[in-house]
Formats: sequence, structure tokens, C-alpha cells
Amino acid sequence: MISSERFSRIKQLLSLRQPDLTVLMDNVNKPHNLSAVIRSCDAVGIETVHAVSTDTVIKNRQRAARGSNKWVTLVLHENIENAYAALRKQGMQILVAHYTDEAVNFRAIDYSKPTAVVMGAELFGPSESSVSQADHFIYVPMQGMVESLNVSVAAAVILFEAQRQRLEAGLYNRPRFPKEYMKKRLFELAYPSVSKKMAEKQRPYPELDSEGKIVRN
Amino acid sequence: MISSERFSRIKQLLSLRQPDLTVLMDNVNKPHNLSAVIRSCDAVGIETVHAVSTDTVIKNRQRAARGSNKWVTLVLHENIENAYAALRKQGMQILVAHYTDEAVNFRAIDYSKPTAVVMGAELFGPSESSVSQADHFIYVPMQGMVESLNVSVAAAVILFEAQRQRLEAGLYNRPRFPKEYMKKRLFELAYPSVSKKMAEKQRPYPELDSEGKIVRN
Repeated sequence: MISSERFSRIKQLLSLRQPDLTVLMDNVNKPHNLSAVIRSCDAVGIETVHAVSTDTVIKNRQRAARGSNKWVTLVLHENIENAYAALRKQGMQILVAHYTDEAVNFRAIDYSKPTAVVMGAELFGPSESSVSQADHFIYVPMQGMVESLNVSVAAAVILFEAQRQRLEAGLYNRPRFPKEYMKKRLFELAYPSVSKKMAEKQRPYPELDSEGKIVRN
Repeated sequence: MISSERFSRIKQLLSLRQPDLTVLMDNVNKPHNLSAVIRSCDAVGIETVHAVSTDTVIKNRQRAARGSNKWVTLVLHENIENAYAALRKQGMQILVAHYTDEAVNFRAIDYSKPTAVVMGAELFGPSESSVSQADHFIYVPMQGMVESLNVSVAAAVILFEAQRQRLEAGLYNRPRFPKEYMKKRLFELAYPSVSKKMAEKQRPYPELDSEGKIVRN
């Protein structure tokens, strides 16, 4: 049985989650970057992160990173087209961190809108497919000699600007997920192994009382 | 001879540098974090970064990181007392990233003042000595389950808030270093090996013309 403290912590977590904010990692491949990005996503209330890889080594690293934070779901896509389709279906503006002539200062973006931030690979930046289908390019203004930030650093700087705007807009003040989803997810996070078994058997999750105890019917 | 493009790039770099903003890494020890922090410092215009280590392994890693960015100077201190003394001599407020009851939201700080941000080690956080002598504790608000950010991520989130405030305050609009220092530093960055030889021989640097060519007397 879960402790009531832990149960209320998970409940609070879910009530702060931002379903309409996410990150897509386009071939990001260094394990410490993958886990740092996922950790930053968790910190600003992102529940689902996306990743695309074009080769097996990267795919395996992204798969390994999937376990680095059990509170965040990492969805792996076969290619950018599939990933973008999933994001567009959710009505998201797609911002690619990419320094070009058309790029706008990342602070000029309205992050209270449904938003996906695309971060490119460590050495090569975002792939051609992700660049060609972006809604906006954004850049982080820099005054130094180095031309780019570490990818997990750049992601965090952008995400915490989104957090700042979303705090101001009151988007963390009330639960953002539909009630049914909250209930389902609360059970899964409170009882990960039980929920897995129930799902395998295609049985509905049992009810929980206000302290997180399973109600036996 | 240096190209005039590169020379003017270095000149511009120096004119954006913020002498009164810095980071002190208190036993930060993972090589990728050390280099990511230094890179972020360069990006927001920090010229001198400080580090303290209490053991030889960490000291050696910090020493190795010193070469990771030739535009930023990494100063290694024997202990926190020496490091803090150096920062206080420069009139800096010392902010330690440390989540305590007294900690204030990092966005509530006035970073247009001379400021040093102290980042603690990956696992253990800031040392007791650095905590006991801090002016303020600051924290980054988080909505997730994970209790701390990656250290290079946290440093960058704080530094880019400092940058945002300093951009607004116009602190990047005019050179901040004294003229004599600018001249000396410009020579050192334009002619690293020549300047080293001159320094060894305790001879003054030669004059440079407006395109960066050495003026032979």
C-alpha cells in the first residue's frame, strides 16, 4: 500500500502537469544529455517527452534513457514525420531551436500556447526534416565566443522561460488534465506493478480512496 | 597575423564581458558539467569563473576543464575562504543555489548588482563552508517529482535570468572593463603565444593597430 504522503505528492504532481508543453529530441544521443533534458522536463511539469533517432545506437540510448525518470513518459518515434504528426494532432506550435536568419529570440515566443520545443543532436543540430517543417525557429541570445550551448542547457533555458510565462499565466494553478485521465494516471503512478498487470489482463483499475488505498469491491 | 574579422570579433567579445558577474563551482566534478558550466558562462559574457575542490581527483578534473574554453579564465582556489575573499574584494553578493527554508526564488534577485553564483557538487550540493558564508540562498522553482536539476542546467537557468536582467538594464550596451585592461586582454586573446612569451620575459605587449596588426616600433 502506498503511504498517504506519497499519494498526495503524486496527486499534486499530476495537478501541476502541463499536457500542452513538450520537448522533441531529434537525435539527441549523449546519455547525460538525454537524462538531463528529461529531468528538466519533469521539473517544469512536462509529462510526455518525444524522441526521434535515425540510427540504432541513438535509438538504444534513447530507449535506455526512457527509464531514467519514471514520472516522465518518453515516446520514441520512427521519424520526424510521425513525431510532428502526433504533436500537430495536439494543436501544438512546433519551435525548433536553430540559429538562422529567420530565428526569433526565444523570449519573444508565447509559451502559454500549446508548444513543442525541438532540440537537435549534439554535433549536427536539428535534422533537415525537422527544420523544413517547423513553425518557428528560436535562438537563445549569447554574448560569448562559443556558438552554441550544451543541448540540455539550451533546452532548460527555453523550458524555464516557458515555466516563467506559464506561472504568470496561472497555468499551474489548476489541474490541466481531464478528470478521467488524472484518475487513471494516479493509479498507474501509485501502483505501477499492479496497473501493469491489470492492463495486461485488460481489466479496469480498481477505485482508490482519498488516502490512496485500493477499495475492494 | 590575426585576420581583421577575428580581431573585431574578439574586440566585440570583450566589449560585452561582464566583470561583475561570475560563478563559483564548489566541488563540481563531472567533466561534462564543468565544461557545460564554463560554456554557459562564456555565453552570458562571464570572463572569469572560479572553482574550489577538496580532493585531488576533483582538482585534476577542474584543472583539465580549464582548457575547455580559451575565452573564459577558470581560477582554482584552495578553499572556499580564499574564493569568497576574492569575490568579496570585488564587492560581489554571493548567492548559493541551495534549497532551504530561507532560500528565495532565483527570479527575485537583482542580478544587475555585482553577483557571484555558487553551484555545489553533483551529489552533495554546496559545502558547509560555502553555505555558512553565503549572502543569500536561491532556488529554482520546480513542479516535478525530481528534487534537483542537473548542476549545469541549474547554473544556466540562473545565468540566463541574470542575462535577461542585464540586457534590460543595458549592461551589455557599453564596454564594462577599464580601457587598459581591455587593451591588455585584447592582445592576449589575439596573440596567445606571443603574449605568453612577452609575459615570461616581463616585457610590455606591443601596440596593435585598428585591424589588429602588431605595430613595430
